[in-house]
Amino acid sequence: MVWQRPDGRQFDRLRPIGFEKGFTRFADGSVLTKCGNTHVLCNVTVQAGVPKFLEGTGKGWLTAEYRMLPTATNKRQEREGWKLSGRTQEIQRLIGRSLRAALDLELLGEYTLIVDADVLQADAGTRTTAITGGFVALAEAIAKLLSQGKLTRSPIRHQVAAVSVGLLQGEPFLDLDYDEDVTADIDFNVVMNDDLAIIEIQGTAEFGSFSRTQLNLMMDLAEKGIKELLEAQRRSLSLST
Amino acid sequence: MVWQRPDGRQFDRLRPIGFEKGFTRFADGSVLTKCGNTHVLCNVTVQAGVPKFLEGTGKGWLTAEYRMLPTATNKRQEREGWKLSGRTQEIQRLIGRSLRAALDLELLGEYTLIVDADVLQADAGTRTTAITGGFVALAEAIAKLLSQGKLTRSPIRHQVAAVSVGLLQGEPFLDLDYDEDVTADIDFNVVMNDDLAIIEIQGTAEFGSFSRTQLNLMMDLAEKGIKELLEAQRRSLSLST
Amino acid sequence: MVWQRPDGRQFDRLRPIGFEKGFTRFADGSVLTKCGNTHVLCNVTVQAGVPKFLEGTGKGWLTAEYRMLPTATNKRQEREGWKLSGRTQEIQRLIGRSLRAALDLELLGEYTLIVDADVLQADAGTRTTAITGGFVALAEAIAKLLSQGKLTRSPIRHQVAAVSVGLLQGEPFLDLDYDEDVTADIDFNVVMNDDLAIIEIQGTAEFGSFSRTQLNLMMDLAEKGIKELLEAQRRSLSLST
Amino acid sequence: MVWQRPDGRQFDRLRPIGFEKGFTRFADGSVLTKCGNTHVLCNVTVQAGVPKFLEGTGKGWLTAEYRMLPTATNKRQEREGWKLSGRTQEIQRLIGRSLRAALDLELLGEYTLIVDADVLQADAGTRTTAITGGFVALAEAIAKLLSQGKLTRSPIRHQVAAVSVGLLQGEPFLDLDYDEDVTADIDFNVVMNDDLAIIEIQGTAEFGSFSRTQLNLMMDLAEKGIKELLEAQRRSLSLST
Amino acid sequence: MVWQRPDGRQFDRLRPIGFEKGFTRFADGSVLTKCGNTHVLCNVTVQAGVPKFLEGTGKGWLTAEYRMLPTATNKRQEREGWKLSGRTQEIQRLIGRSLRAALDLELLGEYTLIVDADVLQADAGTRTTAITGGFVALAEAIAKLLSQGKLTRSPIRHQVAAVSVGLLQGEPFLDLDYDEDVTADIDFNVVMNDDLAIIEIQGTAEFGSFSRTQLNLMMDLAEKGIKELLEAQRRSLSLST
Amino acid sequence: MVWQRPDGRQFDRLRPIGFEKGFTRFADGSVLTKCGNTHVLCNVTVQAGVPKFLEGTGKGWLTAEYRMLPTATNKRQEREGWKLSGRTQEIQRLIGRSLRAALDLELLGEYTLIVDADVLQADAGTRTTAITGGFVALAEAIAKLLSQGKLTRSPIRHQVAAVSVGLLQGEPFLDLDYDEDVTADIDFNVVMNDDLAIIEIQGTAEFGSFSRTQLNLMMDLAEKGIKELLEAQRRSLSLST
Repeated sequence: MVWQRPDGRQFDRLRPIGFEKGFTRFADGSVLTKCGNTHVLCNVTVQAGVPKFLEGTGKGWLTAEYRMLPTATNKRQEREGWKLSGRTQEIQRLIGRSLRAALDLELLGEYTLIVDADVLQADAGTRTTAITGGFVALAEAIAKLLSQGKLTRSPIRHQVAAVSVGLLQGEPFLDLDYDEDVTADIDFNVVMNDDLAIIEIQGTAEFGSFSRTQLNLMMDLAEKGIKELLEAQRRSLSLST
Repeated sequence: MVWQRPDGRQFDRLRPIGFEKGFTRFADGSVLTKCGNTHVLCNVTVQAGVPKFLEGTGKGWLTAEYRMLPTATNKRQEREGWKLSGRTQEIQRLIGRSLRAALDLELLGEYTLIVDADVLQADAGTRTTAITGGFVALAEAIAKLLSQGKLTRSPIRHQVAAVSVGLLQGEPFLDLDYDEDVTADIDFNVVMNDDLAIIEIQGTAEFGSFSRTQLNLMMDLAEKGIKELLEAQRRSLSLST
Repeated sequence: MVWQRPDGRQFDRLRPIGFEKGFTRFADGSVLTKCGNTHVLCNVTVQAGVPKFLEGTGKGWLTAEYRMLPTATNKRQEREGWKLSGRTQEIQRLIGRSLRAALDLELLGEYTLIVDADVLQADAGTRTTAITGGFVALAEAIAKLLSQGKLTRSPIRHQVAAVSVGLLQGEPFLDLDYDEDVTADIDFNVVMNDDLAIIEIQGTAEFGSFSRTQLNLMMDLAEKGIKELLEAQRRSLSLST
Repeated sequence: MVWQRPDGRQFDRLRPIGFEKGFTRFADGSVLTKCGNTHVLCNVTVQAGVPKFLEGTGKGWLTAEYRMLPTATNKRQEREGWKLSGRTQEIQRLIGRSLRAALDLELLGEYTLIVDADVLQADAGTRTTAITGGFVALAEAIAKLLSQGKLTRSPIRHQVAAVSVGLLQGEPFLDLDYDEDVTADIDFNVVMNDDLAIIEIQGTAEFGSFSRTQLNLMMDLAEKGIKELLEAQRRSLSLST
Repeated sequence: MVWQRPDGRQFDRLRPIGFEKGFTRFADGSVLTKCGNTHVLCNVTVQAGVPKFLEGTGKGWLTAEYRMLPTATNKRQEREGWKLSGRTQEIQRLIGRSLRAALDLELLGEYTLIVDADVLQADAGTRTTAITGGFVALAEAIAKLLSQGKLTRSPIRHQVAAVSVGLLQGEPFLDLDYDEDVTADIDFNVVMNDDLAIIEIQGTAEFGSFSRTQLNLMMDLAEKGIKELLEAQRRSLSLST
Repeated sequence: MVWQRPDGRQFDRLRPIGFEKGFTRFADGSVLTKCGNTHVLCNVTVQAGVPKFLEGTGKGWLTAEYRMLPTATNKRQEREGWKLSGRTQEIQRLIGRSLRAALDLELLGEYTLIVDADVLQADAGTRTTAITGGFVALAEAIAKLLSQGKLTRSPIRHQVAAVSVGLLQGEPFLDLDYDEDVTADIDFNVVMNDDLAIIEIQGTAEFGSFSRTQLNLMMDLAEKGIKELLEAQRRSLSLST
């Protein structure tokens, strides 16, 4: 028996994606990103200067913070304090690495970009939504730097987007929602750039294991989803494709 | 010379107030509250059970958490971790006390209501906006408990609303925005219920001091503002006045 | 029926106030302040230099720390560690603001005054006792700076004192002790200077609410008490009135 | 030009692997695992009982802790305190997940196995060494439970081993040492069981990106390395192959 | 040349010792102990119940906390927060061990005695003053338990007192003050009971080392001082000698 | 009846002592020190520069860190995080003081030596083993500085070694193991240099007390043990005696 998706989607279909630009007024780039019922506020702040290890190199940096509001999930969760959970730290490190891959840090120069990904509502896929929407907010912040004359050439060398795939009853499905996510045996996240080259791949068998063949099927599905997300980013940013 | 308000308001006028109910889907009450450019997401969660000191008394409880997103302000601020600032603690204690005054805790029974006030955008008056909007979210959460049959009688005994007043060049002004707030000599916050009885009054002379006469003028102005906020709450909740 | 005060005081009478100057030898000003059975050690330290945000401005600063000894109260309380309670933070911020209002910070110059208010014994009114006694210790520390020639002109521009008032059975009473404090519906603290101008007013309805009329009665009573405390400060400091 | 490995190994060769069983006397399984110059002490402790979320289910649990001694690396590093770094948390979560995949948790019953992986000397590949050696220590601890009669049937259903692969100048190399690791563009770790099914795959492009073809080449190499590590585990544990 | 003591004392003389009983009103025993200019408030609290490891054994427990007020020393010191300094922890462990040696914990029964030693003013010898004065406060608290009928037989089996000795220019001196303490090469503290049996001995060469002969001379001097302290305790407690 | 030692040793015999030099490759001195079943990895790191309070004085510094692996003891212990236990802090302060006594800090010059004592296996006497073995690692690190030409003259002015003694049934025994340690009434640790002068003496009566005569017997025994340890250090370091 084949898995029936709760919202009736085909196995290879994304949830509706939306980017609400300019959601708040003080961040340099602010995008409320909606992937189905997962809503992530991606705000980018530009700061002059770089961390110690880069001072004087002429290179810039990008770092990310990720949090869930306590009421984002079905059951309210305590705020994380000083001691972030392992999960939160993994996710913010992933977002940072992925979005740095969008940039030529030398062209950026000695600026630090801080990406705050605050999950307002969570229905699975928050980390991939944060990356996909974070790129749009990043592009907005860079556009502002260019319009202010602080940069003369865009340091963006690639679009970057991310998606999840999962195995349910041994078959791959694209862009799981929460009910699917808790049922899936495999948690698989892929980040790619606009050449469809791989930036990051993380596959974890929560139960059981998976084969080389299943790995390939999941990669095919991820590629298809990411193509569509890249296209949605371009539409939002009014870029020609 | 008299102070000219940046947005041209009269001295006794509130900023536009708005309540966007149902902003997120998992909280029991969710209201994005906008007071001019101050935007506070007020989410209320209902939990069975009460803190230790109330167990077995049959009484309920309400507690509040308050945070700013790092990008809420003009200049990005670090997230607060385990050790909350004095300011944050003062504010969340104030929100909790004020909204408890709206309730008959015995009628509520052994439920705990958690009010999460997350400031998405800050242009002064975040604590008063959190109280005024928090009441609307609270009313939504109570309505849900009633419709679920978990309560048979509403424990809401009063509407509660709050507003700030300040002295600029010795004259009182209602509902300061950020540019006014940093200029004002006096920081004055008032919380009242729908009888216009005082729940809380906090007046601090940042510079100088103020007289009994000025205290009375500020109270008059606060009363006028709170009347209008109570009316706006009723419209939002479709209550007859 | 009218409230009978446990110690037989009239409604408008303070508890006996005493200032034991020079209580410890290393602080620049050291005053064991007794307000009835509330005993607060108020020690002031003078440090050269100011916090970052004031460096180079020529202005001084004053900051306060407040703690209770674990054995100060009827039931021993745990010491507070790194993460101060909201109550403690509110109180030390209040003490700091109130005593800064006594000073001309420009005349002080780039010194930082640290007021340590350590409660040895608590019978309600610890924060107001800390402010009233803190002023005496502050005056001692300033006198020392003048006698050492580090200052040539006193930066003290006002005396500052504080008192609590409460409503019991709807009637106002001055300077509550612990048994009264836990019974009162309203917690009301007022800080004034020697012009009887208001520095800070904090009124909280723990239960119920209070009217504008009650606010005025409480302010009248506070004013009377503060007048007497200012007089006691002057006697202790041998100032002509 | 092709990368010359510092130690002259072929691209597809592992470093020498060794398992020193019984290294300390108090742990239930204790294996000093050496993979070239990377030395990890893998100690397993058996505790009766399970975490809250498993109580009463009849299932067991396995959790891991990972630390480096401060002197493990070329340059001394501060000990991590209460707030573990993101890297450390990611690694100990990975070790835990990987070794749980070796077990039938129902057969284990309500025991908790704690795997302490303490890196005494680090020359890259500490996390994969911890997993490969951790399995041997785990097998020792299970053997002890069986010999004590606390278990009657082994809950081990799979061997588990792990290895790293990297791309240097675009070509894949097996089991990088530190000098290779800092040069590589891709950080790639694979965990497999004794069916060569995938438990976990983590590939991160530190610089640039990688193609589907390169992904496949790296998987081939990982598979070869893991086969040899599984064989070494069997020899150490005197299992027939 | 022989060391001249700043206050003209002979090498074998104690500073004036005083015990002000009943210093605060809420502790079960409260003694402001003065040893010269070292002033330590020793407050003892009685709590029903014992720590986990003693529950059900019928034995009692005694534990100590030690802190300095920030203004106790010549130069103001930061308060210690959650993470106590090594020095503070050593001292409070020493006080606890020493005063437990005064008690028959079985006769005490399942009570916990908490000794809070708060240093109001420090001129060296704070830990020994805390022990010597702590014993007096302990005796007061036990007397209260007896008078309340909670105990029928005193669990005090020994008086306990402590003193410091130091080597200055190779010669031993009793009960150093601060100026002597910073000059001394050896920091030597001894705790004895009323049989002059040794409870604790701690000798540390800050510079150089010391011989067996010097050890014996220092022990002789400590014995003499402790004899006098035991006598002073008895006078304060009106015990026959 | 006289105490029979579990391993049949005479009352005045040490456990077998061993120093495995060069145990890890990155520390400047690395010695796995075994005192019977107590195994402590003593690693010394040399860092240019000194703590703030010594900057510019031309003097060097030595500091120590002490930890147990969680699996070092019979029953697994939690790792200590940010807030070290009092016991751990006491021990690392003792190790630091003791090994500083081996050095002429002026000859060392502005280097900081960090001694990491990590207990891999614990059978009592870990602190004394850390000091005795730490000296050997220190000598190795200094030899390296000399061979590198960073120092021209050795700053080592003394060997330093340490041993424990205990009273069992009133009689003294040298170098207790764990089973003896938990039975002993007195915990007694002595640190001496190669002149057999005392660096540190710590004697604690866990139960009861001890006499001046017993103190002398324990010192005699400690002296005998330390002589043998100094000899073992010399053999390990190939020093003429």
